[in-house]
Amino acid sequence: MLPLTSGSFRRAVLLRIRSARLLSGHRGASGGPRCRWDPPAGAEELRGELDRFGGVSVRLARRGALDRLDAASFQRRLQAAIQQWRSEGRIAVWLHIPILQSRFIAPAASLGFCFHHAESDSSTLTLWLGEGPSRLPGYATHQVGVAGAVFDENTGKILVVQDRNKLKNMWKFPGGLSEPGEDIGDTAVREVFEETGIRSEFRSLLSLRQQHTNPGAFGKSDMYIICRLKPHSFTIDFCQHECLRCEWMDLSDLAKTENTTPITSRVARLLLYGYREGFDKIDFTMEELPAVYTGLFYKLYHKELPANYRTMTGMD
Amino acid sequence: MLPLTSGSFRRAVLLRIRSARLLSGHRGASGGPRCRWDPPAGAEELRGELDRFGGVSVRLARRGALDRLDAASFQRRLQAAIQQWRSEGRIAVWLHIPILQSRFIAPAASLGFCFHHAESDSSTLTLWLGEGPSRLPGYATHQVGVAGAVFDENTGKILVVQDRNKLKNMWKFPGGLSEPGEDIGDTAVREVFEETGIRSEFRSLLSLRQQHTNPGAFGKSDMYIICRLKPHSFTIDFCQHECLRCEWMDLSDLAKTENTTPITSRVARLLLYGYREGFDKIDFTMEELPAVYTGLFYKLYHKELPANYRTMTGMD
Repeated sequence: MLPLTSGSFRRAVLLRIRSARLLSGHRGASGGPRCRWDPPAGAEELRGELDRFGGVSVRLARRGALDRLDAASFQRRLQAAIQQWRSEGRIAVWLHIPILQSRFIAPAASLGFCFHHAESDSSTLTLWLGEGPSRLPGYATHQVGVAGAVFDENTGKILVVQDRNKLKNMWKFPGGLSEPGEDIGDTAVREVFEETGIRSEFRSLLSLRQQHTNPGAFGKSDMYIICRLKPHSFTIDFCQHECLRCEWMDLSDLAKTENTTPITSRVARLLLYGYREGFDKIDFTMEELPAVYTGLFYKLYHKELPANYRTMTGMD
Repeated sequence: MLPLTSGSFRRAVLLRIRSARLLSGHRGASGGPRCRWDPPAGAEELRGELDRFGGVSVRLARRGALDRLDAASFQRRLQAAIQQWRSEGRIAVWLHIPILQSRFIAPAASLGFCFHHAESDSSTLTLWLGEGPSRLPGYATHQVGVAGAVFDENTGKILVVQDRNKLKNMWKFPGGLSEPGEDIGDTAVREVFEETGIRSEFRSLLSLRQQHTNPGAFGKSDMYIICRLKPHSFTIDFCQHECLRCEWMDLSDLAKTENTTPITSRVARLLLYGYREGFDKIDFTMEELPAVYTGLFYKLYHKELPANYRTMTGMD
């Protein structure tokens, strides 16, 4: 949070902070390079690409001239390149390093580079050359877990499990972490099936919990979402490896029991409210829509709009 | 998504997949080591800690005996250690490497290690020793962006901006990316203030959008949340660097205009519905609650429960 300060100072702070979103590399994966940068003499291996945010992005080749370069020579060339970039007014350097070229990471770190992120077979380091603290955008901050509250409206029963490994004797909804690129509802349906053998269908998003510095998320934040699912099968065949018990329980019993977590109890009471007075009172429903520019689709969740508000036809 | 297959095969697949949540290192940051592992002869620098999930975690020291070890010697010792771990039935190795010791990354990669993640001044690599494909838990998958729909109930006006850099002439809500560890509502209030100079207060969560393989998220997923905010100040002092325009606009005009994004238009109509028929019809409200075991607090968002469902007192 920014402190509230008087006008001009605040504006200066804001300018410093706001431009963080606009910097080099953030949209590099989509926008592509604007032009090729000519490196200083002796640093041909460090050919960089300028971006429209004032940064330069260097991708070390997997093979090539760098194979014959030792760490000390690399460091000298990188230092010369940084001087050049600085003199040209560049504000940031992005350095992409294949894992087998990782001997160049420590020399870069000696010159002030830090890890931005790493995944699988490459790492990305950054060096901030602009004024003040770095304004470069960060990497992913959240893992997403999803649980499925599978409720059978015909019997008033809800599917619950007891973990084998933790929270013993506490009834909860089956669930787990989203895989990369997996939609919220798909995670819920997959996890429910894997834990309980029950097939189900996404109906709505019921609640969202945000928690930070999560040990189970390697210190990052955790977003935990509970969805309402409709069962398509009813015979339980639960994962003995993960669950101690699995049952169809009366929803009103789950709403009253003390053998559950606070969030499960809360959502059970929410479901009971929806069951008795209409699920439209508790649901965020989902719709898939096209993104404006990227050609990608996204899924949007909110309280369902009455028809006359959806089209705005005939409204004043 | 797992394909639906016949019973016993499905269970085998499930056992393989389900144990992914239980593996080494995932909860290592909280659970701590179970015991210290004695390394094979000649590999004292690779002293590891066993965890209760069948994995071993090795933290290379920032300084010490490793300083005198070259990459080739490290590779030989790591190879011997891997053989030992494999013979003991370990299923995974976590290797934590300070950035200045990064010369050991490529030798580890030659033995099959991959980056799990890296941040600031260290990286973590993993090697899967168990059967089948790796079941190790992944790293954070989502960035979280938050926008604030600041609505003045007294005038029926909503705060909107036009970006200087993209989506020109499209009215939208001010917003931006969450900082690490920042709550959803705090991001909305901060971003609104930074972009527009308007002070405001969190009221509710209105919508959530999930989008994958986002170029602006370094290929990761994006969660975009729109909050309803109540204004505490009204004089606009917008960030010229980021915004082209900023206005208090009649909500009904925003709900009808074509000069806006589909999601802004949708949320404007949602707000109009709430303004006319009660915000309880559209809001997910927030409550802070203590976590069961960790001592941390979390924020929980869902449709507000009527009082009799909150306590379940006097309910059948």
